[in-house]
Amino acid sequence: MSTVIEGGTRRRTPPASLIERLRQRFGDRATTSEAVLLQHGSDESHYRPVAPDAVVFAESTDDVVDLVRLCASTDTPLIAFGAGSSVEGHLLAVEGGVCVDLSRMNRILAIQTENLTATVQAGVTREQLNRELAHSGFFFPIDPGADATLGGMVATRASGTNAVRYGTMRENVVSLTVVLADGNVIRTSRCAKKSSAGYDLTHLFTGSEGTLGIITEITVRLHPQPEAMSAAVANFPSLDAAINTVIRVIQSGIPVARAELLDPLTIRAINSHSKTALRELSTLFFEFHGSTTSVTEQAASVQDLATDLGGRDFDWALRPEERARLWTPRHHAYFAVLQLKPGSRSFTTDACVPIAHLAQCIAETIADIEQTGLTAPIFGHVGDGNFHCMILVDPNDAADMQCAEQLSHRIAQRALKFDGTCTGEHGVGLHKIDYLVEEHGAIALNAMHRIKSALDPKNILNPGKILRQ
Amino acid sequence: MSTVIEGGTRRRTPPASLIERLRQRFGDRATTSEAVLLQHGSDESHYRPVAPDAVVFAESTDDVVDLVRLCASTDTPLIAFGAGSSVEGHLLAVEGGVCVDLSRMNRILAIQTENLTATVQAGVTREQLNRELAHSGFFFPIDPGADATLGGMVATRASGTNAVRYGTMRENVVSLTVVLADGNVIRTSRCAKKSSAGYDLTHLFTGSEGTLGIITEITVRLHPQPEAMSAAVANFPSLDAAINTVIRVIQSGIPVARAELLDPLTIRAINSHSKTALRELSTLFFEFHGSTTSVTEQAASVQDLATDLGGRDFDWALRPEERARLWTPRHHAYFAVLQLKPGSRSFTTDACVPIAHLAQCIAETIADIEQTGLTAPIFGHVGDGNFHCMILVDPNDAADMQCAEQLSHRIAQRALKFDGTCTGEHGVGLHKIDYLVEEHGAIALNAMHRIKSALDPKNILNPGKILRQ
Repeated sequence: MSTVIEGGTRRRTPPASLIERLRQRFGDRATTSEAVLLQHGSDESHYRPVAPDAVVFAESTDDVVDLVRLCASTDTPLIAFGAGSSVEGHLLAVEGGVCVDLSRMNRILAIQTENLTATVQAGVTREQLNRELAHSGFFFPIDPGADATLGGMVATRASGTNAVRYGTMRENVVSLTVVLADGNVIRTSRCAKKSSAGYDLTHLFTGSEGTLGIITEITVRLHPQPEAMSAAVANFPSLDAAINTVIRVIQSGIPVARAELLDPLTIRAINSHSKTALRELSTLFFEFHGSTTSVTEQAASVQDLATDLGGRDFDWALRPEERARLWTPRHHAYFAVLQLKPGSRSFTTDACVPIAHLAQCIAETIADIEQTGLTAPIFGHVGDGNFHCMILVDPNDAADMQCAEQLSHRIAQRALKFDGTCTGEHGVGLHKIDYLVEEHGAIALNAMHRIKSALDPKNILNPGKILRQ
Repeated sequence: MSTVIEGGTRRRTPPASLIERLRQRFGDRATTSEAVLLQHGSDESHYRPVAPDAVVFAESTDDVVDLVRLCASTDTPLIAFGAGSSVEGHLLAVEGGVCVDLSRMNRILAIQTENLTATVQAGVTREQLNRELAHSGFFFPIDPGADATLGGMVATRASGTNAVRYGTMRENVVSLTVVLADGNVIRTSRCAKKSSAGYDLTHLFTGSEGTLGIITEITVRLHPQPEAMSAAVANFPSLDAAINTVIRVIQSGIPVARAELLDPLTIRAINSHSKTALRELSTLFFEFHGSTTSVTEQAASVQDLATDLGGRDFDWALRPEERARLWTPRHHAYFAVLQLKPGSRSFTTDACVPIAHLAQCIAETIADIEQTGLTAPIFGHVGDGNFHCMILVDPNDAADMQCAEQLSHRIAQRALKFDGTCTGEHGVGLHKIDYLVEEHGAIALNAMHRIKSALDPKNILNPGKILRQ
């Protein structure tokens, strides 16, 4: 069975009068339909849904303001919902309350190519933004896999495969419009590229998971579409050799756009799924962005470094169809892996460590997985020191789930042992709360509590997430 | 005369017993010598010094902990001091109290080349760190001009000429050790390259100007020393043409390392100072970092773009001595400019706007300067939308100072009109406090006040800076 969260005892059910007022203010956009509630109390995590008491579909910052004021007046929890693609239980209504669905706030408000910025409503998804940018010469690089909303990506400080070059949401958010817990609205920053004017509210709200305010508009950085791209693939005699190759690539100042590691088990899954005959070894997939000259040179430099460290079958390509061929195994990896255990779901971990410790951290994790008998292939965003174990579980098998949870626990603790973080890009939600004391220390965690209390004294904004009251 | 700050009425003079306890705990490292007090109540701003009541030279985080506890127990203000190179009045003891001089905390604790990080005590200066890194293949890029301490650079969110490529302190701080207002110590983050584990304390303290905690240790990002550098210079028929060239360079994805604008008046100063015959036009200085192939290509691409927009006398160089020759005018600009009005000091502004508005903002500023009769050449970190007017003043001429202050005021307001910031890289200190309401709005400013109160309820940490009580 999936993990059941006990939210009942703390549940703050809103008074009937609030539901009535929501209906008056929002009409059909306020609903208590069971199916809608259930959908909004779920995410992509292994938790069983915990439904809110009502869902309101917001269409503007003003809608959110009115909703926050109504909730604040009755001490009712309020949970922001974007695409529902969270994986750590961010969306479960563990204390009940109202879910504000921001997916209809999906207007692209401005594209400012001279400033390399775009301003969007929080419900715009990254694919939507990139479709809009398709012929502009610019793109928005952050790619967490899911077609998440920008609001959700800010809220979880998301990243993905090309963060090694373009940074995470942390480096790509310029300014936010945020509705605070009392219904007042702030803009966290002007749109100058840099500023030293006071406390950095933009970064305080980035990664705050809806617990400090509701993000309704976002200005993000855009990047020029590269003139050319090249791709390269190589396999390595050991995990160490693969990771050391990436370390040397970064130390050499080669501005690699992606550097993805697949472990031998994942390659085996791909061979089985796609009828390929790849060598079942630790394998790196690279992508390079720049001028044609530059991406050719980058691939050649990486080939030299990889070969020095025992890399084999090095292959690289400049033309789009050739690049696609090289990266196809990486693109198919997720589905190939699920076929290792048909009917299974992935229980995904998110450790991130200083890259100097990455090889040892992954090696210990592979040995750990072998001891459990679980099937858990590994994908790594190596350049950032971040890797995911896809623990394949039968969500209806309690023993399987418990074993996966224990493995996940050891992986988070191992990341902390190596001066890393329990979550590189997925966020805390419900699932990582208990690691924060060890990760940050009780005093830093207390500082976070004080900030939360200062900005949300009634604890109505996504209560029970990040911090335990 | 220089600007006099009225701090007397709010002055919280520490009790004699505190001074005694400081002497007991720190011996000779606690002093009330007039000369030392005066030096520590000054910075590079136009304000007259306001001395603290005592200065303590800290040598460790433990020293700072004990000092904070002693100050907290008597409600005594505490001001952190690094190199004293602030320019906005950050160091003036406007409420009295103790100044903690961190310059003896100058140990480089670790250089981790695999992780591209270095960990230093807060009193290490950027030049010291780069000397230590000289043969490592890595460097620390942020260069605010002065040989500031890393602690001071974090505290003011400093940047400089190569932020266009390497970012500001905001992008280059990984983790901080901070002594909070109650003497407890936190580390703001693990050293993984990215994390989604809770509120971003690292960025909250970066730019907090000693008002939320005392930073004692810092882990910063290092960057690979580029294999090659090239430099280029060109002059332009108009400010617009020069700035549009930089916009196109950035839009083209050319990873320019520096892009500095000098206005015609600055070029005239250089011609006069260095006996050169440069065309007295808006002039851009570029630097490119990368492989030899790449920096050659970058310079050629920039030449094409500059020529399209009317750039003339384009000159570029790869060899170090030739590069130095090209950049010499830029390096001499500051001293050349001071010679325009011998005996003067520079009253420096720090506007930063979205780059799309930069040309208009500078053009309006030049017209404004002309109306005042002041001499105020302009240097621009164009790629970031940041520019400085060096208003040349006689600090003993009250009318001159008032006129400069009024011009500075209009420049800050103009930056805000263009959705920019009153301070791109110098910080708020005393001088920019009154712009924050307009820049952030009263509600965001109130959120900053609430954060300050949550973390420093007795308001002992650098009181009267950033926020007005």
